[in-house]
Amino acid sequence: MTETAMRERQWQSKPRAGRGGPRGQDARRERHRGAPGDAVILYGWHTVTAALANPARHFRKLLATENAMRRLAEEGITPPLPPELVRPDALAARLTPDAVHQGLIAEADPLPSPDIDELEAAGLVLVLDQITDPHNVGAILRTAAAFGVAAVITTARHSPEATGVLAKSASGALELVPIAIVQNLARALAALKERGFLVVGLDSNAPDDLAALALPAPLALVLGAEGKGLRQLTAATCDRLARLDLPGAIKSLNVSNAAALALYIAARANA
Amino acid sequence: MTETAMRERQWQSKPRAGRGGPRGQDARRERHRGAPGDAVILYGWHTVTAALANPARHFRKLLATENAMRRLAEEGITPPLPPELVRPDALAARLTPDAVHQGLIAEADPLPSPDIDELEAAGLVLVLDQITDPHNVGAILRTAAAFGVAAVITTARHSPEATGVLAKSASGALELVPIAIVQNLARALAALKERGFLVVGLDSNAPDDLAALALPAPLALVLGAEGKGLRQLTAATCDRLARLDLPGAIKSLNVSNAAALALYIAARANA
Repeated sequence: MTETAMRERQWQSKPRAGRGGPRGQDARRERHRGAPGDAVILYGWHTVTAALANPARHFRKLLATENAMRRLAEEGITPPLPPELVRPDALAARLTPDAVHQGLIAEADPLPSPDIDELEAAGLVLVLDQITDPHNVGAILRTAAAFGVAAVITTARHSPEATGVLAKSASGALELVPIAIVQNLARALAALKERGFLVVGLDSNAPDDLAALALPAPLALVLGAEGKGLRQLTAATCDRLARLDLPGAIKSLNVSNAAALALYIAARANA
Repeated sequence: MTETAMRERQWQSKPRAGRGGPRGQDARRERHRGAPGDAVILYGWHTVTAALANPARHFRKLLATENAMRRLAEEGITPPLPPELVRPDALAARLTPDAVHQGLIAEADPLPSPDIDELEAAGLVLVLDQITDPHNVGAILRTAAAFGVAAVITTARHSPEATGVLAKSASGALELVPIAIVQNLARALAALKERGFLVVGLDSNAPDDLAALALPAPLALVLGAEGKGLRQLTAATCDRLARLDLPGAIKSLNVSNAAALALYIAARANA
């Protein structure tokens, strides 16, 4: 899959009205996750309703079409804030032309990023070393939620924000899997090792097959970007490196597909 | 992952010069694969060099930047037709802004679509029931090539063309995995069953876990679109329906991730 991402159109709102301007109307897209003032944009039925069901999510604004309002009522969903009724074309105008909003857009605060030291030393965590494509990261989060992953760890730099296309691709998984954002990945891996995690990096050139390794929990699986793979320091910090055993002519997968196989293998080893 | 696709900008060439106009300059994007006159657009290093290595691929045009020309020479690749030297911005102008061409674009004939009756009754085939997103279908083809899948079967309608974004996401797999395009999928599945294939459809509501089934070759795995799943007649034509066992809170995956897991499970069953 391409590492190039569909660029999100900026959340089209009025420019900040001044220092005293109301926060709810200041929905500019910002660069960094987690900084106060960030606005996270969530669209699509699954993505928004999963967020509405998450008591930790703080909403700034909820926009819904008449159809979506009716569907919310039919499904007995009472949003924590009153939705603003909007026309479908007004929703569409806020997103890229190919974004499927299904009548719902929410603007919310980002979820908090847990510290590595707060993670329970149990189960499975997934570590992403500068995977940049938001479709891929979203699909990875969705699969991580399907395998009950305890947390996903990403770098603050060279990672997409947990908003927009990423949130849509995650299909509600943002509300289920905590994302720990770290400044220094090698240091985060060292902290995991100190706390008892076995840290295994995926590397298509590694001699060992992941499925042939002992993979006891707590386990951290580390994936690098397609093409680039793990950065040198990341690879050097792992306890073990392993590859996926691929019998065919192509030896590297789309990174979200590689993540799905690695999670399946790790979950099976700990079942 | 979104079912919405980045739309490819039309291959920008001069309009047809008239009935007698040279075919090589008539590179309009057409709707259907396989019809004479179609132009397939391939871009990106892996995608184009894999096609150049495929003796079954017939090229109409090859465009390369100076850097790509040098890299072809360095890697000892002699294209079957002389590349036209172009500037990077001239290549970029032919594609969507986020397409990563890496200095190479080729225009080629589509590869032939084999008949179902030509497929050897052995190994594993993958059947896609109206999966529309070209990123997903490309990633599925790439993973299919990694698992040595004998063929991928798709419907003529509601399937993306084997060009552009799909080809880029497939990362060379188009040259390795034959794609059989059928008008009537239920009839194709019936033909596979007659020839001895076990036909297993993926369905997240099925009671059986795919990994717990006997999956002897020849085996056909059938995947439906996200959200919609298998069409009713497709599901009814399968020998068995099975789900992927997902221990977490989310019970459905991005379709390319689901395909990767299903292929892994099937390959392991036949290893």
